Amino acid sequence: MSLILTQLQNQIGTITFNYRAYRNILSKAMVDEILEAIEALRKSKARVIIFRAEPGAAVWSAGHDVRELPLPGRDPLAYHDPLVTILRTVQELPLPVIAMIEGGVWGGACDLALSCDILIGAPNCSFCMTPAKIGVPYNVTGILHFINIMGVNRAKEMFFTAQPLTAEQARTAGILNHLVEADRLEEFTYTLAEQITCNSPLSIAVIKEQIRLLASAHPMSPHTFERVQGLRRRVYDSRDYAEGINAFKEKRPPNFTGE
Amino acid sequence: MSLILTQLQNQIGTITFNYRAYRNILSKAMVDEILEAIEALRKSKARVIIFRAEPGAAVWSAGHDVRELPLPGRDPLAYHDPLVTILRTVQELPLPVIAMIEGGVWGGACDLALSCDILIGAPNCSFCMTPAKIGVPYNVTGILHFINIMGVNRAKEMFFTAQPLTAEQARTAGILNHLVEADRLEEFTYTLAEQITCNSPLSIAVIKEQIRLLASAHPMSPHTFERVQGLRRRVYDSRDYAEGINAFKEKRPPNFTGE
Amino acid sequence: MSLILTQLQNQIGTITFNYRAYRNILSKAMVDEILEAIEALRKSKARVIIFRAEPGAAVWSAGHDVRELPLPGRDPLAYHDPLVTILRTVQELPLPVIAMIEGGVWGGACDLALSCDILIGAPNCSFCMTPAKIGVPYNVTGILHFINIMGVNRAKEMFFTAQPLTAEQARTAGILNHLVEADRLEEFTYTLAEQITCNSPLSIAVIKEQIRLLASAHPMSPHTFERVQGLRRRVYDSRDYAEGINAFKEKRPPNFTGE
Amino acid sequence: MSLILTQLQNQIGTITFNYRAYRNILSKAMVDEILEAIEALRKSKARVIIFRAEPGAAVWSAGHDVRELPLPGRDPLAYHDPLVTILRTVQELPLPVIAMIEGGVWGGACDLALSCDILIGAPNCSFCMTPAKIGVPYNVTGILHFINIMGVNRAKEMFFTAQPLTAEQARTAGILNHLVEADRLEEFTYTLAEQITCNSPLSIAVIKEQIRLLASAHPMSPHTFERVQGLRRRVYDSRDYAEGINAFKEKRPPNFTGE
Amino acid sequence: MSLILTQLQNQIGTITFNYRAYRNILSKAMVDEILEAIEALRKSKARVIIFRAEPGAAVWSAGHDVRELPLPGRDPLAYHDPLVTILRTVQELPLPVIAMIEGGVWGGACDLALSCDILIGAPNCSFCMTPAKIGVPYNVTGILHFINIMGVNRAKEMFFTAQPLTAEQARTAGILNHLVEADRLEEFTYTLAEQITCNSPLSIAVIKEQIRLLASAHPMSPHTFERVQGLRRRVYDSRDYAEGINAFKEKRPPNFTGE
Amino acid sequence: MSLILTQLQNQIGTITFNYRAYRNILSKAMVDEILEAIEALRKSKARVIIFRAEPGAAVWSAGHDVRELPLPGRDPLAYHDPLVTILRTVQELPLPVIAMIEGGVWGGACDLALSCDILIGAPNCSFCMTPAKIGVPYNVTGILHFINIMGVNRAKEMFFTAQPLTAEQARTAGILNHLVEADRLEEFTYTLAEQITCNSPLSIAVIKEQIRLLASAHPMSPHTFERVQGLRRRVYDSRDYAEGINAFKEKRPPNFTGE
Ligand code: NI
Ligand code: NI
Ligand code: NI
Repeated sequence: MSLILTQLQNQIGTITFNYRAYRNILSKAMVDEILEAIEALRKSKARVIIFRAEPGAAVWSAGHDVRELPLPGRDPLAYHDPLVTILRTVQELPLPVIAMIEGGVWGGACDLALSCDILIGAPNCSFCMTPAKIGVPYNVTGILHFINIMGVNRAKEMFFTAQPLTAEQARTAGILNHLVEADRLEEFTYTLAEQITCNSPLSIAVIKEQIRLLASAHPMSPHTFERVQGLRRRVYDSRDYAEGINAFKEKRPPNFTGE
Repeated sequence: MSLILTQLQNQIGTITFNYRAYRNILSKAMVDEILEAIEALRKSKARVIIFRAEPGAAVWSAGHDVRELPLPGRDPLAYHDPLVTILRTVQELPLPVIAMIEGGVWGGACDLALSCDILIGAPNCSFCMTPAKIGVPYNVTGILHFINIMGVNRAKEMFFTAQPLTAEQARTAGILNHLVEADRLEEFTYTLAEQITCNSPLSIAVIKEQIRLLASAHPMSPHTFERVQGLRRRVYDSRDYAEGINAFKEKRPPNFTGE
Repeated sequence: MSLILTQLQNQIGTITFNYRAYRNILSKAMVDEILEAIEALRKSKARVIIFRAEPGAAVWSAGHDVRELPLPGRDPLAYHDPLVTILRTVQELPLPVIAMIEGGVWGGACDLALSCDILIGAPNCSFCMTPAKIGVPYNVTGILHFINIMGVNRAKEMFFTAQPLTAEQARTAGILNHLVEADRLEEFTYTLAEQITCNSPLSIAVIKEQIRLLASAHPMSPHTFERVQGLRRRVYDSRDYAEGINAFKEKRPPNFTGE
Repeated sequence: MSLILTQLQNQIGTITFNYRAYRNILSKAMVDEILEAIEALRKSKARVIIFRAEPGAAVWSAGHDVRELPLPGRDPLAYHDPLVTILRTVQELPLPVIAMIEGGVWGGACDLALSCDILIGAPNCSFCMTPAKIGVPYNVTGILHFINIMGVNRAKEMFFTAQPLTAEQARTAGILNHLVEADRLEEFTYTLAEQITCNSPLSIAVIKEQIRLLASAHPMSPHTFERVQGLRRRVYDSRDYAEGINAFKEKRPPNFTGE
Repeated sequence: MSLILTQLQNQIGTITFNYRAYRNILSKAMVDEILEAIEALRKSKARVIIFRAEPGAAVWSAGHDVRELPLPGRDPLAYHDPLVTILRTVQELPLPVIAMIEGGVWGGACDLALSCDILIGAPNCSFCMTPAKIGVPYNVTGILHFINIMGVNRAKEMFFTAQPLTAEQARTAGILNHLVEADRLEEFTYTLAEQITCNSPLSIAVIKEQIRLLASAHPMSPHTFERVQGLRRRVYDSRDYAEGINAFKEKRPPNFTGE
Repeated sequence: MSLILTQLQNQIGTITFNYRAYRNILSKAMVDEILEAIEALRKSKARVIIFRAEPGAAVWSAGHDVRELPLPGRDPLAYHDPLVTILRTVQELPLPVIAMIEGGVWGGACDLALSCDILIGAPNCSFCMTPAKIGVPYNVTGILHFINIMGVNRAKEMFFTAQPLTAEQARTAGILNHLVEADRLEEFTYTLAEQITCNSPLSIAVIKEQIRLLASAHPMSPHTFERVQGLRRRVYDSRDYAEGINAFKEKRPPNFTGE
């Protein structure tokens, strides 16, 4: 059975996460299926894609499959890793992607949701950014992504506390474009998607690409960037990082010492 | 008769759009008059300028004069075009410009309003960004302008759906500094303008210029920029672009095919 | 007697401004004490630092000590000046700093508060940015700081009018992460701080540094920057700047002529 | 008959320009054949490619096919034009390209030669950059290309005078890596190519890409870039530009008036 | 009597430095005359301008008028200072400027010569960059200017040793486009200037502007730039800087202690 | 016995590599000694430092200690590695460093030599850049370093062929400031160093720092940089990289397959 369901109607493609047993975790298998579905929808001339969980889901997606994280000593958020690849694909896709969200959005799934162009949430949705809980040094493009949407200080609180934002907080922070009652969520989302399909796909594609480039146009010198990579490497080489992953797997709170 | 009215009182200049027959459209003639008025107000030592429509206007400005758009094959948002010139003038002006807004703000007029330093709106104001409706590839500085004020995701929804934002949504999105009842709009705006005239015009001028430079400091490599211009050219060379303009002139919905 | 009080409990350091006679003004002496306290807390392995005024304060801090401003002809916001140094220290500190705010936050103290990573305010807090009132040409990093948090247009209003934002306005503008009743302020703040101390300090440190670098990654060419410094110098060489400082010291409104 | 000849031996691909009747002009047809040949050589695992003219050629390539230039009013150096496409392909190719040069290199062919990674010339080679002779506003990436190799002042002389550089001047200017007697040119070039084939193709590919990115890492703000495009448009909309193209086609000196 | 002589022939303007008594020093008076002459030549439709000293000069220009340097505590290379203004004017002028050089070129005059687009020197010309001799912290755009032309290491030697480069060394370093015998200097220079006047002035103007922008496109973050300005201020506030200026005026070697 | 010798005379510090048995290889032990010596010389108020090998050396330094390279799967040129650390130290040192070079300069030692501010070589010196021979993906700051000094095309040849440059070629390429007969090398170098000690150390320090910052001011977006790191990781994860290191250790030619 497939981990996702795909549908195309009125030029609107829908990808439904269907991996409830593992809370729609973004494992390599899951990501590969989503990438294939996106490719198929593009070929079928979809003008907008909606990502959603199964109706009534308690978890939209639980993010990274921690079992797939590399051993300490390797960057856990490398350019060709599945999660980083799906984020890039969504961002570079020349058509809008809407995240229609019920339930919890955790870790890497936050980054996937925020990579979508428009986010529409139900009152039970929540967003929790967990790298500091496990000890992961997040990557630069991922962090930029958050501060472009939420501003600097809200992103800091989200990352430093690793506490969930409620739907209402997510709306205030600019994460959600719209917060809609659960029973109106679907209709609201598809109506908005239809408005997009009436407009010029060429114009939309180039504007999306321009926004992507402008939002990432925070260039840094190679010296600065290599310094950041050096700092990040110290983290994923650390004892704390191993502790964080072990604690997660053993479902116990980690004991971080800063070493 | 003039397309605008100009007034100067207590170092506060006011430019009132007075071209109701054409919904205060930003035609070349209109832009030229505004540019002249700005120049005159500067010479008269105005310390702040207010842009407004006639009291009770249903439309603050309808934006571009579509009749003046170039033929397909030419960039419709070029550096020396009237609309782009007035945006630049307002942004580079060494004194604050306040947009006092009643009624609809459409297309290029959105960009003019957002180019003002402070926006104060009445409950009937609304903002609609229409390039995707016509098939226009918007220009890079214009898009940067929107994401600097609204954040990335709200700007995407505004551009991709081409649906109007209500006054309340505009306030939440950070477009409006203040949303004020219609009958208090004038008083509120002039009070705020007076506060500005008490402060150091030299200090204000240099801070405005610094903000302008910082807000545009999202530099991109020449390769990236020429690629964007290449993508934009494909749009204004497309069949869809011609269709979008024709449909607009013929007041019918366009039929976009993505070609 | 010391100008500040320092405490460390449960890895949470607290620095309490204790210079009520001068409204917790950020004089060189005050800054030196804060810098020392920060250094001591770091050595004692604090994982988060809280800046606060004495309980019930009417003024969190009144900012610059205007008596210490240099004579006209010298940049009043130079890199090695006390205020600029404390801002940089807080921003570069590899652990989170929380501003817990009661009372007024004026001028340079706004910049200190916004340099903190998370801001939690009581209903009586307010924020007032005063350089245009005195005629000071603010520095570029300081301005960038404001627009990264508040967006472009809100920052302009704050600087151009030099009027205070209420606690509610500060929350809407994204300055305050949380607005909390005065009697719950302390508990709320320490609970949030404790959440931070449970997470990986290495991960948090590198994420804070990445956010700092990304937020300042608005690079400008040397030509642009030297032009800005030239414009700023014209301001601090001006008659108006001398007038602004004199008026402040003489507690009378300044008479600015733009020269 | 084909406009080029292609050969692959010892992992060294050779593309020989074979369009002597039109002085190896880079027409759309010529560019298409070169692009196909490059693709085929890549698939056949070539580790280095050599571009050359037929032995003893008096002209390596005469550059743009002026007959294919667009009408005035259109950017003559647009992103998807054949010449600009071949330059980009060579620069982005993940293996080294060597230009082995006998004879004259004119206009756009200069840009192609300089896009190659290593240039080896015979004493009869010469380089002439002709846009100012015709009145063409050169594109930004093209100009960057020249100043990265020759330095600022030599590039200015080359563009402003439109006079040819001799082989010796080209060596001094850093255009030629090596200046070799005509009868040793082939042996010298293939020996150097063989040295490359002994080394790690993965290491070479990533270093080439890094150099490409660093050399183009001269980012400019969108405002600056759109201003440049505006200035360039004024040139290709000008009377002088039409005059330059006509004069070229009529083989007479142009009469430029600056309008 | 004027400090310069101006001539216009065949669209070639010539500005001859005529202030031999003070070795063509770039005093405010001298700069003002040059600026006026440039403006006049532009209005008269000059297509190229030549800067030269009187025939047979031993000194092309001795640079800064040290008597006009500000007191310690002020930046000696500020944006609106005469020397910095003339450099900017030459760089931004939309037509080529050729430096025809006989004799010594010292200090700020080096920067003026290198600001010209093409440099042609006689065998007796020499270039000496003296800020380290006096203790001046050079400005950022000035330094960028040198490294763009000479490369990083040659510029370092020139600045650190403050020793003159001979004509031959200047040619090797890329400072001189051409080194020509004294008796052929004039003919050679005017022939090259004439070649420029045959070409499209519009195309040349836009290419010069593009090169200027690309050469200055080495953007730095505001934090980095303010740090540099802080370091520079420490130098012009230092005891050594006062010593350097005094020693120069007293024509004795300075005694630098590093404080 | 120490791996280096240190001397200080007339404010000129000299560090002599003294590890002939291992061709002055830059092992961790060697780097640590150099770092200590630099620190000691700074404290003793040296105004310039000279790096040299023992007189008459056949090898100035053989670069990386390949035995210390990490296992495949780890970046071999990470920010905190000894070689990368010494490069950064030399570049950030606030006083000039002169490389006085006899004999071969290989691999990482090239980068050390080019990190020095001024290079003076004897006729037997040579420079060989070997990463492509071993299959190492060089780091971005290192490559930038080479292209800033040699230009783009010469750097490509040096990296792609991994063949040594002769002293004469190094002078032409701008690597050597001076090429001096072996018996005059010492006198020439110390004379130049003395010229530096006469000048203002404050002025020199800030100019060196400005040049460092400008030379590294080739900023790239985080997306671009992470893509490069992803490409580099594919190389150090590859079979070819393991083969390159093994072949080097076994002193046989590697057999690269591109996988
Ligand atoms: Ni930004
Ligand atoms: Ni550069
Ligand atoms: Ni560069």
